[in-house]
Amino acid sequence: MSTVVVQKFGGTSVGSTERIKRMADRVIQEKKKGHDVVVVVSAMGKTTDALVKMVGDITSEPSKREMDMLLSTGEQVTISLLTMALHQQGVEAISFTGWQAGIQTDSVLGNAHVQSIDTKRIRNELDNGQVVVVAGFQGMTEDGNISTLGRGGSDITAAALASALQADRCEIYTDVDGVYTSDPRFVPKASKITSLSYEDMQNLAIMGAGVLHPRAVKHAKKFGVPLIVKSSFENGRGTMIHGKAKQNGSTPVIGITFEEDINRIELFDCEDIEGLKKALMCELASRHIQADVYKQSCRNILSLLIKKNDHQEVLSILNEGKDKENWVYSRIEGKSGLSKVSAIGQNIKSQPIIKMNMCKILLENAIRVKLVGESAISITAVVEKSQVQLAAERLHTGFGLDYEVVMKASV
Amino acid sequence: MSTVVVQKFGGTSVGSTERIKRMADRVIQEKKKGHDVVVVVSAMGKTTDALVKMVGDITSEPSKREMDMLLSTGEQVTISLLTMALHQQGVEAISFTGWQAGIQTDSVLGNAHVQSIDTKRIRNELDNGQVVVVAGFQGMTEDGNISTLGRGGSDITAAALASALQADRCEIYTDVDGVYTSDPRFVPKASKITSLSYEDMQNLAIMGAGVLHPRAVKHAKKFGVPLIVKSSFENGRGTMIHGKAKQNGSTPVIGITFEEDINRIELFDCEDIEGLKKALMCELASRHIQADVYKQSCRNILSLLIKKNDHQEVLSILNEGKDKENWVYSRIEGKSGLSKVSAIGQNIKSQPIIKMNMCKILLENAIRVKLVGESAISITAVVEKSQVQLAAERLHTGFGLDYEVVMKASV
Repeated sequence: MSTVVVQKFGGTSVGSTERIKRMADRVIQEKKKGHDVVVVVSAMGKTTDALVKMVGDITSEPSKREMDMLLSTGEQVTISLLTMALHQQGVEAISFTGWQAGIQTDSVLGNAHVQSIDTKRIRNELDNGQVVVVAGFQGMTEDGNISTLGRGGSDITAAALASALQADRCEIYTDVDGVYTSDPRFVPKASKITSLSYEDMQNLAIMGAGVLHPRAVKHAKKFGVPLIVKSSFENGRGTMIHGKAKQNGSTPVIGITFEEDINRIELFDCEDIEGLKKALMCELASRHIQADVYKQSCRNILSLLIKKNDHQEVLSILNEGKDKENWVYSRIEGKSGLSKVSAIGQNIKSQPIIKMNMCKILLENAIRVKLVGESAISITAVVEKSQVQLAAERLHTGFGLDYEVVMKASV
Repeated sequence: MSTVVVQKFGGTSVGSTERIKRMADRVIQEKKKGHDVVVVVSAMGKTTDALVKMVGDITSEPSKREMDMLLSTGEQVTISLLTMALHQQGVEAISFTGWQAGIQTDSVLGNAHVQSIDTKRIRNELDNGQVVVVAGFQGMTEDGNISTLGRGGSDITAAALASALQADRCEIYTDVDGVYTSDPRFVPKASKITSLSYEDMQNLAIMGAGVLHPRAVKHAKKFGVPLIVKSSFENGRGTMIHGKAKQNGSTPVIGITFEEDINRIELFDCEDIEGLKKALMCELASRHIQADVYKQSCRNILSLLIKKNDHQEVLSILNEGKDKENWVYSRIEGKSGLSKVSAIGQNIKSQPIIKMNMCKILLENAIRVKLVGESAISITAVVEKSQVQLAAERLHTGFGLDYEVVMKASV
């Protein structure tokens, strides 16, 4: 059996027919090395925006099922065009939608999780010498509905396929050339990380590093498939994600992440704050809504930090739950226009000095902190959106992650 | 069990989000009458052209499988948008792709025939009170590939579904307000036919009346479901197609049809002209290529009239067959830029006067006739494309079909 390599090309990488042809060349290079190649693609650059715009003309509250039906066409266009580009170069190839590729998801439409992959059809085609081109971001529910995997969905498809096929590696081609200690568009001194453990990458991703979805990392980790993040347009080594976390040197902080457009919902005077917290987290998880839930016990306030786009849905969850036992609080307050900035590292909570340093750095730079929360792998400060870039830069410097410092240390 | 009504909206009818909303109103009108409504839609106006243009950037010889993968996204976009428009009006609705609707086709990709429809899923949803919105033009092969039904495919989907669901009627909403004695864009004196038998409609359609695909009529005829062709934008009765053909009065000619962009392929000095004709017709039929095959016995020439777009494929069939028994001829000659014009009527061949009149009318108008062929239901003349409109107009007048004549006769 040949080695399987999975290659994933994001929306920018396949943003035009010209680029699709260039990506076909990358696929062919890999195929010529004698590997079985599975390619996963996203929708072409602006396709999704154009589809969403049409929806806006029709309704402000589209059903999730119909949105998935609509948006899944985007990748279907790309797979056929890329396959044609491969044929044009004389390479045998076949395209599969998510359901044809055997990708079964749960029923959380719009944000589904991959449950299982029946790889029979892909294996057959690989054995026939075909390059298999799979539509990312999509699958099928048990009821035969088309589902989509939410943000970062194509990465998830690629990693899940790589795992199911026990691939040699999964290459994620994107518009950045690797994983950085922070987002280099906001923090110019961010430095590239050449090698990273699954856990460290998961922690960065969970707390906002947009380069990979945490579930993509989880799928790759499951069978130990190395994930490689590299540029679609340049030839570089990129970042390899593999193996176990090592203990870091002087600081356990491996990166500074941030998320903009965060809303906060506060529930005041909770009667059973612990019970409500558990029940809410359970309900949010079942709907695949990512949220940080912190309790301020002294005042019986439960604070939820959620993405702006989830705000309406969280409010309806709260509304639906209002007659349940334990869901007792006096009032709700919402606030938008916030951002989260986090210092990430293994067991960071066990070193209180990190949290102290973080607060000190933010204070010294006159950054107004709304809330500080912590978990085993992160210390998170909530700040105004207007101050998040400054906060990220200062924390990045403060924790010794700046490019020139890292370079010096590695000499 | 309620009455099922199938409504089909073509590409122009759903050409914009504004028009989709208008079609939703038509659906709701029907639903409010208490019927179970199944809606079949085409791709939005220019979508297919845009997709085909992208293919042109990549390859001049796209694989049929990948073309079907690509083009089928067009209807998938429309079904989701129309379903959202119905939801927006408070009407329960659900969309299905061809494969979700249980439409199974043969494996002639790009021009597949519907083989069977498993209506279970549609029935369930109708029983739940849902309007079911189905993607026209597409189905799935036994191997799980997405197939498309070729020209007029959405009409075929609608009629096949209406038949499988034993619908009360199948309404085809289009940009013309019914079936005419000829194409009114070319023959201004064409008159609308208010009622027509399945057979007469099939004959018109087979010989080029573009308003309906002959296979759509065939599906409707199978279970006697009335087909109604009417305008998407005006309120009129349209044309009802149902029941058996009646004997016509003074002339058996019910319409003049024509097809532009016809190519002729001539095979000279055929050794076994009868054997070759049969073998060729068999091969063409298996690939769903429509062709008129005429033999000019005196000179052992076999003439094929085919659509311009099928020319390459017919040449490869001839090439592949060249070693077969009976496939012996001295040379091939091709000619493009032709058109067919036909007089249509039941048993027309049995009345030689029609053919004589046709030749006379064409001769009197200085129309150069390349070939005259006949079948049980048609007399066809092949002319230069530049003369086809003149030919159609003169034959229309000559056979007493002009609007004012028809009106006078019906008084």
